[in-house]
Amino acid sequence: MANVSDPTNFSRNRTYVVSPVINEDRTVTFRFAAPEAGEVQLHGLSSSARGEFLELPKPMVRRDDGVWEITVGPVAPNIYRYNFLVDGAAVNDPNNSQVSQNERTLGNLVEIPGDAPAIYAMDDVSHGNVTMRWYRSSTLGVTRRMLVYTPPGYEASGDQQFPVLYLLHGTGGSEANWTNEGRVNFILDNLIACDAATPMLVVMPYGRAYPKISRESGSIGFRENIELFERDLLSSVIPEVEANYRVLIDRQSRAIAGLSGGGGQSLAIGLGNLEMFGSIAGFSAAIRESEFEDVYGAGLADSPAPNLLWVGCGDLDHLYDVNRALLSWLESEGVDHIAHLTGGGHDFQNWRPYLHDVAKRLFKPAAPQ
Amino acid sequence: MANVSDPTNFSRNRTYVVSPVINEDRTVTFRFAAPEAGEVQLHGLSSSARGEFLELPKPMVRRDDGVWEITVGPVAPNIYRYNFLVDGAAVNDPNNSQVSQNERTLGNLVEIPGDAPAIYAMDDVSHGNVTMRWYRSSTLGVTRRMLVYTPPGYEASGDQQFPVLYLLHGTGGSEANWTNEGRVNFILDNLIACDAATPMLVVMPYGRAYPKISRESGSIGFRENIELFERDLLSSVIPEVEANYRVLIDRQSRAIAGLSGGGGQSLAIGLGNLEMFGSIAGFSAAIRESEFEDVYGAGLADSPAPNLLWVGCGDLDHLYDVNRALLSWLESEGVDHIAHLTGGGHDFQNWRPYLHDVAKRLFKPAAPQ
Repeated sequence: MANVSDPTNFSRNRTYVVSPVINEDRTVTFRFAAPEAGEVQLHGLSSSARGEFLELPKPMVRRDDGVWEITVGPVAPNIYRYNFLVDGAAVNDPNNSQVSQNERTLGNLVEIPGDAPAIYAMDDVSHGNVTMRWYRSSTLGVTRRMLVYTPPGYEASGDQQFPVLYLLHGTGGSEANWTNEGRVNFILDNLIACDAATPMLVVMPYGRAYPKISRESGSIGFRENIELFERDLLSSVIPEVEANYRVLIDRQSRAIAGLSGGGGQSLAIGLGNLEMFGSIAGFSAAIRESEFEDVYGAGLADSPAPNLLWVGCGDLDHLYDVNRALLSWLESEGVDHIAHLTGGGHDFQNWRPYLHDVAKRLFKPAAPQ
Repeated sequence: MANVSDPTNFSRNRTYVVSPVINEDRTVTFRFAAPEAGEVQLHGLSSSARGEFLELPKPMVRRDDGVWEITVGPVAPNIYRYNFLVDGAAVNDPNNSQVSQNERTLGNLVEIPGDAPAIYAMDDVSHGNVTMRWYRSSTLGVTRRMLVYTPPGYEASGDQQFPVLYLLHGTGGSEANWTNEGRVNFILDNLIACDAATPMLVVMPYGRAYPKISRESGSIGFRENIELFERDLLSSVIPEVEANYRVLIDRQSRAIAGLSGGGGQSLAIGLGNLEMFGSIAGFSAAIRESEFEDVYGAGLADSPAPNLLWVGCGDLDHLYDVNRALLSWLESEGVDHIAHLTGGGHDFQNWRPYLHDVAKRLFKPAAPQ
């Protein structure tokens, strides 16, 4: 029975176009049906400059049936974003429903498997759930969605209470990024299965008061948007979680982490509310040097020290220098922290392993720092 | 802070393209940046022939900055699918992350609000959750995802047990369709809030043994794929649900329903397993007359009669005649049922109200049939 609503991209002769195809030698074939187009290119959306196949738009070749095709690689095992440029216009791959859903855009994903299971592989272990939860934000006067990871066996764990990681996306992203692209659930499942991480909940809210599109319509400024989200998190998200899940509610059992814009939020909200959060991590954090004294220093001055303060960035990231400056400032101030400087850029190829590293360290009082 | 991974479709002068925009008079403006394209069209993916704006590809007009634009309508309040044709190639709207995620494709969604809240509106009522749950199918030898709606207050409802509706998508669809496009959770929330439906769980599995793409690669035939899913449902999905949720496990408390291909499956699986399912519904069901005697008649012959047997179809649907034939056969056989013939076609504009009607009737022993 044909699905008459199927928006599949057909070639002119009405055969299915299958894209992408991962070949046995880890080359990848991409296809796009566009008989009338003058030029179709494969465009990687990663900002990493590691020499992967994603660096620059690569021209695809038109077959006789109007399907454009390119085979690239072999490609190192990982998950990558890509799209197509059709006569210069950026579009998604219409034959690939694997996407990362951002604030108002989508990025196609392609996963290249390796010989050994990746840290984010859906391996043969017990799996936790990810729940879409609609909550009322009295702070913002709106009802909206958060995503909540609960660890394997949560339902059957009786009265056991768990610590919580609040995990933020980046600017332009959404509450779904850490699941769809970050694979937070499988990373945690795999760590918990081998006792490498404490079973925990991971709460992923939408990290802005209002979508950017509201800002463009003149309704809200960038800083106000961030500040209102902090109030939403503290006054609506956390109380909602603590009222509806079996979670520990002391500061040692609350962590906050985020990537890029969400990394900057995590450092500012975490260090500004140390009575609430015992552990704080920034992944490629979008920060400004003016915040070091004014926000972080002020927060640290009259509060208990964090159990874990983790700062990670890649040397190809446009935010590398400001994160190095933060690390120098923390050194000079004598603030205990973990510096996690790596190769790579501003992308989930770094953020998945950053989460993996942080998750292993969280909620373990005796963990070495 | 710019998101360097943002795949947003910019116009040549790097201003954001915002699309779609719902105007106050319920006209809708669509935009797509493609300075080099020769032709861009708006394409509705609805198969309904109700004279909506979606009927045929409509040419968009190129602005001086290379952004193509069209304003259509006023459009009747509803949720519609659409995409663009760029020089004949079907693509999604890159500025709209609201999508229905199918087996391997995406359809963009646009919602036109009305004066009164729709049956699927996210209204100011208590909301249930939708959980992504990864389960091991021993039947199929794979781990995969189902989505589970739990009603408002499920976590706090103590020992209370709930009935379960198993709800199937159509051919080419995915376990996410009924949430993303069908708004099953908001339809149920709104009904439960005014006591019009019994609080229930809704379980949405992936309704095939393997994606169609596996079939294309020669690994599995169409019928075998359907039959293996039935085994997965009965041997893996239902036991997983009944082991992990507080649900009633008598036949009166299990229902099965689905749309299109999933409607055909619901009738065949439901009537073929009346000791398991007390209520059965087909929405625009993809069925064959040869099944009436061989499958439905055989199932009905030596089993308890269903509490509810519901058959709905729209008069513009390509499956209208075969569903009318089913209703005639049920009449001639003296099988109690509800005939729900409507206007409209093979789309969620019909399936959302069909679900609304069925949900009101489920799990109510005294309900009029």
